[in-house]
Amino acid sequence: MNFTILKQDSGSLARRGILQTAHGAVQTPVFMPVGTQASVKAMANFELEEMGAEIILGNTYHLNLRPGMELMQKAGGLHAFMNWQKAILTDSGGFQVFSLSKLGKKNRDGIFFQSHLDGSRLFMGPKESMEIQRILGSDIAMVFDECTAWPVSWDEARLSLETTLRWARECRIQPRAEGQLVFGIVQGSTFPDLRRQAVEEIAGMDFDGIAIGGVSVGEPEKSMLEVLDICAPVLPLELPHYLMGVGTPRQLIAGVLRGIDMFDCVLPTRLGRNGSAYTPTGTIPVKAARYKDDFTPIQEDCGCYACRNHTKAYVRHLLHSNEILGARLMTTHNLYYFIQLMKEARQHLEAGTFGSFAEKILQTYPAAKSRPALPEEV
Amino acid sequence: MNFTILKQDSGSLARRGILQTAHGAVQTPVFMPVGTQASVKAMANFELEEMGAEIILGNTYHLNLRPGMELMQKAGGLHAFMNWQKAILTDSGGFQVFSLSKLGKKNRDGIFFQSHLDGSRLFMGPKESMEIQRILGSDIAMVFDECTAWPVSWDEARLSLETTLRWARECRIQPRAEGQLVFGIVQGSTFPDLRRQAVEEIAGMDFDGIAIGGVSVGEPEKSMLEVLDICAPVLPLELPHYLMGVGTPRQLIAGVLRGIDMFDCVLPTRLGRNGSAYTPTGTIPVKAARYKDDFTPIQEDCGCYACRNHTKAYVRHLLHSNEILGARLMTTHNLYYFIQLMKEARQHLEAGTFGSFAEKILQTYPAAKSRPALPEEV
Repeated sequence: MNFTILKQDSGSLARRGILQTAHGAVQTPVFMPVGTQASVKAMANFELEEMGAEIILGNTYHLNLRPGMELMQKAGGLHAFMNWQKAILTDSGGFQVFSLSKLGKKNRDGIFFQSHLDGSRLFMGPKESMEIQRILGSDIAMVFDECTAWPVSWDEARLSLETTLRWARECRIQPRAEGQLVFGIVQGSTFPDLRRQAVEEIAGMDFDGIAIGGVSVGEPEKSMLEVLDICAPVLPLELPHYLMGVGTPRQLIAGVLRGIDMFDCVLPTRLGRNGSAYTPTGTIPVKAARYKDDFTPIQEDCGCYACRNHTKAYVRHLLHSNEILGARLMTTHNLYYFIQLMKEARQHLEAGTFGSFAEKILQTYPAAKSRPALPEEV
Repeated sequence: MNFTILKQDSGSLARRGILQTAHGAVQTPVFMPVGTQASVKAMANFELEEMGAEIILGNTYHLNLRPGMELMQKAGGLHAFMNWQKAILTDSGGFQVFSLSKLGKKNRDGIFFQSHLDGSRLFMGPKESMEIQRILGSDIAMVFDECTAWPVSWDEARLSLETTLRWARECRIQPRAEGQLVFGIVQGSTFPDLRRQAVEEIAGMDFDGIAIGGVSVGEPEKSMLEVLDICAPVLPLELPHYLMGVGTPRQLIAGVLRGIDMFDCVLPTRLGRNGSAYTPTGTIPVKAARYKDDFTPIQEDCGCYACRNHTKAYVRHLLHSNEILGARLMTTHNLYYFIQLMKEARQHLEAGTFGSFAEKILQTYPAAKSRPALPEEV
């Protein structure tokens, strides 16, 4: 098995584990920074490594359009192309096809769509997605699924789930890169029966991990947690559990409490560039006038480069002046915070004190209003 | 004296020196990266230090508008504000007032203008400029001068020079920050008699250094070199010589040959962000199609972070995808190249081999077409 559970929390479904990949071990629970276009926005590899990132995301949809798979093959895959030596998870492109591009006809084998970059007509289905991910050479590939919008009718969700499950079976038998793990994805919108069916069927397909998709697509946080409460208790315990596209610090902790091991989200990078800093006492709008002459760091006692070296007043000035360094410092701080949050979660899981730690985080970050974090803009 | 000449080249006016400042020694000849708004665009301080930058520029005009001197005073000056521990040179704001802002009436004491940011009406003259630079606490302050456009008539240039010289005298007697050096500026457009008069008068004012201004304002390179050939031989030998806003690698070397010790220019940062990389064999348009699948670094054997870690194909992809990392890597490479070029110049001056080194650079970079490097856009 690639996934080892080191410790099970006594008071919740939370667990502390290690996922072995072809590019090193990943300590879980883990937050994975999003590197949509072969770059975690504003960051260099050494900075990600310094803050402890062991795995990042790449986007199949985006990388297939640009730089394209002919080049990626010549480069020897995504790791070599971007010179990232640790693990990479690639999504399947499904979410982007359905959310970013102009859609055409769907058939049994996939879907026609137009590139959001130049309008060129393309086709993607389970075979194409897995072939792209094979060329990218990611350590973890995701199955090509249909991600329903929210809200959606039960009938539509059921039909869509049928497609997703058929495509999942096809993805599982496609050729893989050496050592590549493949994760199945549970869909079914907010319908308990469909979600339960999805878990059961995906669990029966012998994947290396199981993901909950179709959340963080516009639904209220409450609905997301309901989906989690339906799915989480019935997920195969021995597999790593990945909650896709989630979320806020609060949602990460809520996920860990429900047995989720892996998370990815654009919030720390995107909100960082826009001026919101995550801290143990909540988010801070660094551009606000009240920080004009605040010569303390974004977060006291934070170990990130931004906080060790610069003040809110300076970062605020950079953001208002549209200086690239502003985006860099904010991104550095936020990613550090998310990665540190998961590191602390792991430590508390090991020490048996996760319950009170989780409680503290949930109190700090009150329930979010519906503000889903759509994929990184490009 | 703050400036020590370690070695005088036997075959030219070139010299190898050290300029002592309140924030450390600066080895000359030196290239100074431009940090217009309290940030060298796309760079963090540690990166500038790693590539060997001992002095950077700050812009009086920009910093006065944003973040403003009330904040700068509270911050304790520009070094503290941006946490840069090495030397800083501030320009006087004169160039920006005349080139960026909407001008109002000029009087004996300065000039009225409107902020390019919000149109607010402001006044700046020698007293105001020196007061701002005192608050900024730069290691080297520049006198507030009038920079004539190009071309200009002899009569206009003469009148303008009169103003510049009167203002220079006033700047010299203004209060300074502790340990702050003040450099005079030679104007006079492309007129030999005015330039000679300017050198003579500025040289008589007991400044800590002497700068040649009013070049790189749109005139052909040939005219700039003619100005240099007029001024350079009559500059006081014991003072550091600074050629403002210049230039290409070729122009830097041409300057060193004429006894220039200090240079600043936005070319490496701005052209870098736009995709042009400087190399020992000339500039490379990294975005060009021919580098699509070029998996070699921008420059073989280059010691910069970009070249040690990434390929042209990857950097090209980042630039085409508007990824911040693309601007970072290009800026890193170009600044490294400019700083390295001056480091090599110093080594060749020490070894007595500067003549042949200079010849090689001048052959690599053919004479530039008129393309002045205007101040860093903001």
